[in-house]
Amino acid sequence: KINGTRLWDSIMEMAKIGPGVAGGNNRQTLTDADAAGRALFQKWCDEAGLTMGVDKMGTMFATRAGEDPDALPVYVGSHLDTQPTGGKYDGVLGVLGALEAVRTMNDLGIKTKHPIVVVNWTNEEGARFAPAMLASGVFAGVHTLDYAYDREDLEGMKFGDELKRIGWVGDEEVGARKMHAYYELHIEQGPILEAEGKDIGVVTHCQGLWWLEFTLTGKEAHTGSTPMAMRVNAGLAMSRIFEMVQEVTMAAQPDAVGGVGQVTFSPNSRNVLPGKVVFTVDIRTVDQAKLDGMRDTIEARAAEICEELGVGCAVERVGHFDPVTFTPDLVENVRAAAERLGYSHMNLVSGAGHDACWAAKVAPTTMVMCPCVGGLSHNEAEEITPDWAAAGAEVLCHAVLETAEI
Amino acid sequence: KINGTRLWDSIMEMAKIGPGVAGGNNRQTLTDADAAGRALFQKWCDEAGLTMGVDKMGTMFATRAGEDPDALPVYVGSHLDTQPTGGKYDGVLGVLGALEAVRTMNDLGIKTKHPIVVVNWTNEEGARFAPAMLASGVFAGVHTLDYAYDREDLEGMKFGDELKRIGWVGDEEVGARKMHAYYELHIEQGPILEAEGKDIGVVTHCQGLWWLEFTLTGKEAHTGSTPMAMRVNAGLAMSRIFEMVQEVTMAAQPDAVGGVGQVTFSPNSRNVLPGKVVFTVDIRTVDQAKLDGMRDTIEARAAEICEELGVGCAVERVGHFDPVTFTPDLVENVRAAAERLGYSHMNLVSGAGHDACWAAKVAPTTMVMCPCVGGLSHNEAEEITPDWAAAGAEVLCHAVLETAEI
Ligand SMILES: NC(=O)NCCC(=O)O
Ligand SMILES: NC(=O)NCCC(=O)O
Repeated sequence: KINGTRLWDSIMEMAKIGPGVAGGNNRQTLTDADAAGRALFQKWCDEAGLTMGVDKMGTMFATRAGEDPDALPVYVGSHLDTQPTGGKYDGVLGVLGALEAVRTMNDLGIKTKHPIVVVNWTNEEGARFAPAMLASGVFAGVHTLDYAYDREDLEGMKFGDELKRIGWVGDEEVGARKMHAYYELHIEQGPILEAEGKDIGVVTHCQGLWWLEFTLTGKEAHTGSTPMAMRVNAGLAMSRIFEMVQEVTMAAQPDAVGGVGQVTFSPNSRNVLPGKVVFTVDIRTVDQAKLDGMRDTIEARAAEICEELGVGCAVERVGHFDPVTFTPDLVENVRAAAERLGYSHMNLVSGAGHDACWAAKVAPTTMVMCPCVGGLSHNEAEEITPDWAAAGAEVLCHAVLETAEI
Repeated sequence: KINGTRLWDSIMEMAKIGPGVAGGNNRQTLTDADAAGRALFQKWCDEAGLTMGVDKMGTMFATRAGEDPDALPVYVGSHLDTQPTGGKYDGVLGVLGALEAVRTMNDLGIKTKHPIVVVNWTNEEGARFAPAMLASGVFAGVHTLDYAYDREDLEGMKFGDELKRIGWVGDEEVGARKMHAYYELHIEQGPILEAEGKDIGVVTHCQGLWWLEFTLTGKEAHTGSTPMAMRVNAGLAMSRIFEMVQEVTMAAQPDAVGGVGQVTFSPNSRNVLPGKVVFTVDIRTVDQAKLDGMRDTIEARAAEICEELGVGCAVERVGHFDPVTFTPDLVENVRAAAERLGYSHMNLVSGAGHDACWAAKVAPTTMVMCPCVGGLSHNEAEEITPDWAAAGAEVLCHAVLETAEI
C-alpha cells in the first residue's frame, strides 16, 4: 500500500510553484517556475536516495538501483510542465505517483531485479513550444535534437536558448538509455471514468493527432472605407474553416475530435481587416486511416474556402503522432493489479497524447488512468480526489513491481 | 499656390519617426514615437511663428494670429498618430497640409481676420485605446475626460498614465476653445476617387459607426479528451458570428460595411478549447436607422448563436458615432475652391471616421479628400502622389482663407 497522504502533500507542495490565476498552475516549460519545480523534484529524489541523470533535452531520470547489474531499468514517469492556465494534476500525478511508488519500496525495503527510473519529461504540453511531447519525441528518434532546439514560442524565444537559460541542459545523449519497459500514470482528462464510476482506466490505445497550422493571407485594409466587394477577408475565411472543421469532425463520429485553441490576428486592430491570420486545427482519432482522411479533407476544403475569397492559404503540419496500441502484457499487468487491489476498472482509449505514446516506439509501454472531476483538464479548475490519486499510484506501483521483478 | 515640395518633404521627414516594418509607420498614440512626432511638429510650428497651446487630452493647437481680436479662430488639422501597421499619410497629410497652408500664408504675407489654428488631435486611430477620435470626442463633449483617461490598451496601460508618461498633459480645459469653423484634409482611404479619376473629394457626409466588443465565455477544456458533445466551444460561436455579420452586412447593401479586425483567444494554447474569446465587430453606414438596425440584428442573432452552443455572450458598445452631414456653406467653399483652381472633383461620403465628425457637433465643419492608391489604408503600403497631396492642401488653403476672411 502506497502512502496516499504523502503523495497528496507532495502534489500540493508542487502546486505552490508557478501558481495560476484561478487556483491552478502556470508552470510552462523552461520558465523560471519550471526551473523551481525541477529543483523541488530533484530535492525529493535526493532524499529518496535516487541518482539523477539529465539528458540534453533537460529530461530528468532519477534511478533507484536494482539487484541485477545487467538488467535494463523499468521507467515510470510523466511531466511537471503545465499549460498557461493548467491544472495541478496533469502530468504531476504521474511523476509524483512514480516517486511515491519508489518511496513506498524504500519504506518496505523492497528490492527489485531491474532498476526503477522516475522520469520528468521536458515540454510535454507543447503549449509554449509546439509540438507537444517534444523531449520524449527526441528520445524516441521521432525528432532531431536540432529540430527541438529550434522550436520557437510566440515571442520568438528558442527552446534551446531557454533550456540553457534555466540551467537544465544535461550531458546525456537523448535516447541513449535503453528501457526494459515504460509505465505512465495520468489523469484521464476526459469524462468517461467518472461517468462510469470506475477507479482505474486500463489504457489500451491512444488517439493519433495532427496539428495543422494555417497561415491565411488577406489584404490589410480599413474596415470603414473598404467596400465589401474589395475586401480580401482572411478573418471570414478563418471562420468558414472553423465551421468546416466542425462539420468534418461530426461526420467522422464516433470517436473523433476536432477544434481550434490558438488564433492570432495581425495587426489585430479594430479598424483594420487582418493581413494575416494564423491558427492551429487540432484533430484526433484512434483510427489511422480516418485521422489522415480528416487531415486531407480539411486541407483540401480550406484551400477551396480561401480560393473563393481570394485569401492566401498555407498549411504547416506542426504536430503529429500516430495512434498507439499499448503493449498487451503490460496492459494485462495493470488490469491484474487493479483487480487484485479491488479497484473497479475499465478499458480506455487515451484522448490526449502522452510521453508514453512516444516511449511506445522504443519500449514495451502502457498507462494507468484515474478519473478527474467533470472530465475537466487544461483548465485551472481541474480536480481529482486524494482517493483517486492513491488508487492510481497503488495500481502503478504494483504493475511496475510485476515488471521490475521482486 | 502652396509649396508642394515643402509639404512632401515634411511628410517624408515625419515618416522617419516610428517606422513600420514594411515601409509605413508604427507611431501609435502615446508611445515614445508619438512623443517624437509631436516634438518635430512643435519645432515646425515654432519656426512658422505659431503659438502652441495644449489641452488636457494632449491635443496640440498652434495659432497663427488674426487681425480681429474678437474673431473666433478657424481650426484646421487632423492627427499624427498611426495604426500599428499604418501608412505615412493617414492623418499626417491633414496636419502637415494645414501647416503648409499657414507657411504659404506666411510666405505671401497674407493676413486673415480670423486666427488660424493648426490642430493635432490625440488618439484619432483608436488602435491602442478604443474608441477612435478620442480627444476630439472629449472636445465635443461626447466623452468625459475621466472616461478617456481610463481607456486601457491590450497590456492594461491607461490612457491618462501614458499621456503623463510621454509628457503631453497640457493645461487647457478640453473643449474650452470656441471654433468659427473646422476643416480637415484627409486621404480617402477608399478606392472611389482614384477609380473615378478625380483630384478632390468634396465630402458631404460621414458614415456612422458601431464597435461591438463581444466577450464569449466557453469552457476551457482539453482538445483531445473532450468529446464533441461535451464542448462549450466559444471559438465555434465566434466563427458563426463572423459569418452572420457578413450576411447582415450584405443584406444591408449598398453603402454598408461590416467586419472584424481584432480577436483574442484565451488561454490561446493549441490544445485548449478557449475559455474566453474577445473580438470587435465594426459596422458602418451613412443611414442612421440602417446602422442601428444592423447593430440590433447582430446583437440579437449573436445571442441566439451563443445560446445554441451554450456559450456565454456579453456585448459592450466600445465605439460609436452617428452619421454626419457636413455644413453646406463650407462644403460649397471646398467645391468652389477646387473648381476655381481647376481640379476635377466629386462629392464623397467618408467611409472612415474623422476628428471632423466630432468637431461637427460644436462647429461648422467639413473635409477635403484626396485619392490614395488602390484605396489602400491602414496598411503600410498606403500610397499617394505628391501631386494629389499638393492639390488637396491647395484646395484646403483656399477654402480656409475663404472662411478666415482675407
Ligand atoms: N496530456 C496532454 O495534455 N498532453 C499534451 C498533448 C496533447 O495535446 O495531447
Ligand atoms: N480615419 C481613420 O482611419 N479613423 C479611425 C477611425 C475609423 O476607424 O474610422
